[in-house]
Amino acid sequence: MKKKIALLPGDGIGPEVMKEAVKVLEAAGKKYDFQLDYEEADVGGCAIDNHGKALPDSTLELCEKSDAVLFGSVGGPKWESLPPEQQPERGALLPLRKHFGLYCNLRPAKVFKSLASASPLKPEIVKDGFDILCVRELTGGIYFGKPKGREGSGPEEKGYDTLVYTRFEIDRIARMAFEAARKRRNLVTSVDKANVLTSMVLWREVVIEVSKEYPDVTLNHIYVDNATMQLVKNPHQFDVLLCGNMFGDIISDECAMITGSMGLLASASLNEKQFGLFEPAGGSAPDIAGKGIANPIAQILSAAMMLKYSLDMPEASDGIVDAVSSVLDRGIYTADLTNEREKAVNTVEMGDAIASVL
Amino acid sequence: MKKKIALLPGDGIGPEVMKEAVKVLEAAGKKYDFQLDYEEADVGGCAIDNHGKALPDSTLELCEKSDAVLFGSVGGPKWESLPPEQQPERGALLPLRKHFGLYCNLRPAKVFKSLASASPLKPEIVKDGFDILCVRELTGGIYFGKPKGREGSGPEEKGYDTLVYTRFEIDRIARMAFEAARKRRNLVTSVDKANVLTSMVLWREVVIEVSKEYPDVTLNHIYVDNATMQLVKNPHQFDVLLCGNMFGDIISDECAMITGSMGLLASASLNEKQFGLFEPAGGSAPDIAGKGIANPIAQILSAAMMLKYSLDMPEASDGIVDAVSSVLDRGIYTADLTNEREKAVNTVEMGDAIASVL
Ligand SMILES: CC(C)[C@H](C(=O)O)[C@@H](O)C(=O)O
Ligand SMILES: CC(C)[C@H](C(=O)O)[C@@H](O)C(=O)O
Repeated sequence: MKKKIALLPGDGIGPEVMKEAVKVLEAAGKKYDFQLDYEEADVGGCAIDNHGKALPDSTLELCEKSDAVLFGSVGGPKWESLPPEQQPERGALLPLRKHFGLYCNLRPAKVFKSLASASPLKPEIVKDGFDILCVRELTGGIYFGKPKGREGSGPEEKGYDTLVYTRFEIDRIARMAFEAARKRRNLVTSVDKANVLTSMVLWREVVIEVSKEYPDVTLNHIYVDNATMQLVKNPHQFDVLLCGNMFGDIISDECAMITGSMGLLASASLNEKQFGLFEPAGGSAPDIAGKGIANPIAQILSAAMMLKYSLDMPEASDGIVDAVSSVLDRGIYTADLTNEREKAVNTVEMGDAIASVL
Repeated sequence: MKKKIALLPGDGIGPEVMKEAVKVLEAAGKKYDFQLDYEEADVGGCAIDNHGKALPDSTLELCEKSDAVLFGSVGGPKWESLPPEQQPERGALLPLRKHFGLYCNLRPAKVFKSLASASPLKPEIVKDGFDILCVRELTGGIYFGKPKGREGSGPEEKGYDTLVYTRFEIDRIARMAFEAARKRRNLVTSVDKANVLTSMVLWREVVIEVSKEYPDVTLNHIYVDNATMQLVKNPHQFDVLLCGNMFGDIISDECAMITGSMGLLASASLNEKQFGLFEPAGGSAPDIAGKGIANPIAQILSAAMMLKYSLDMPEASDGIVDAVSSVLDRGIYTADLTNEREKAVNTVEMGDAIASVL
């Protein structure tokens, strides 16, 4: 039976890069002998324009009957003045995460050797490149904790949010981090603020408990403020970074930026049933949308993560990653990756290059 | 009448660098004609050893009868296994902030031109250096919000904290940011997460209201995740960063690290009555404590901030800052500032050099 993929290209460069991801999936399908069934729906700003909300019911229904969601990117200046909860990013991603219980967000921040010089950090620090995996809890913490609200008026009017974690939630995400570390360099660094937050005292306790089942994996703890410093000082000290929802939002973005190649970073948001949403780390880049020059690699690597995590095709997944590496090693770059703009390939050419390696 | 200063040197390098700060204050006193009355007390780890807690009552009493507190640094491996709320840093700083209502934390992150190459960021990004002031709310938010606790057992056991801000608290700290921006480059960037947190929706509303009274100052808003990225991508885009307590903890540390010269950064924590606590941004550096090689500049600049913010002596304060600059411009460096270790001066020599310029 063919697996069904919900394609949600979204806004900005989303549709352009999505086409290349599908092209590469098709090429991988020929090589590794699989076929996928794609169906497209609106999400984000275009969904607001066409259906009145960022995540229309019809889009949610499509996702429900699919095995995985390949998400483009959403947002743009047109929708920036909407109330926060209606905006494209917030209004599409948060309900999707909650609805499907996508508690585990995996965001690899890896520097491709040939692109190490793109990092904003000094060459002495980046060296040959670093390789960090952020494991972020995605359906709990202060994002969804209750109570959340506003009350009172005048100077005493207040707004409040609740940061809450249960032992169950922490245990579940910690296991994902330790499992991931086993397949990497056997080091988990748990990011918390246990010196100030009671929820984070529990966080640390549970992570320590889980670690006892993984004696082969080293566990370190770091306060979130220090983590932001150590990332720019020496990113090589980290392998897997384990974070709650809010700290993970902050830390994973910093990790992405210090690679210097946001256009290459993918992410996976998974639930307990192997269903997942896969999306590039970068935004919808409205400034270059429609010009055909966006880098499709993050979208292509998102598709690769989808094959691995939701569709049980690790071999095809690795094949796509290898194809991307070899294209980059050959010096084929989109404009965001090189200073020699005149030599840069466009979106379609990059997609073609990767597909043809497969 | 002589102003009274509580000196709390603390642990690690604290006592060594504090001596130099007092030396420089004395030298400034001769030049600018003032005298201060110093009294010393234990704080942090040494206070745990000598009095059983990080902030003994006697120390708090000394602070109460003083006009300002010059704080060294606290903590070290010896006390790291204590429960979080008893540890030197947490156990001393949080109660001091709360007791004296030190709601306004000012943390300048400025790159001295001659030391721009110390930044972990690339030279193209740092250029001649950048100059950011973090204004962090320090007595509210998730640090002190109620309820905070733990309950239940088994998988459903939970730990929780409350992020709460009132209009009054936001208004008060926002004003400090706009006032500071007026004396700098007239730009305030408010860091929030208004797309997810209700408290931050109120935060943004109130900051916008306050901004109307400062038509000469530009106000921008940035999400905290994006802020961590923009800081490493282009720190020059910022002048004053306005943050709540938790985001300020994270962002101000990142700002400090990207300067590359933590040993030069001071901070001020102020209440509404001009009383303040002044401390270096760096830690107690137990690894180099007692060796006489620590950089005393952050402590000296903390003393300069004290003169400016609590003792109404802006001229003497600027005099100290200028003396520090001129010593650095002459290439006089402690070991942390140079690769030519053999040419580095020690703690006392650095203090002497700065005092002699005055
Ligand atoms: C759009 C926003 C709600 C979201 C988040 O904060 O989680 C985004 O920043 C992310 O990291 O996916
Ligand atoms: C020690 C700790 C409680 C403190 C904080 O989180 O505020 C520290 O990190 C700081 O920034 O002064």
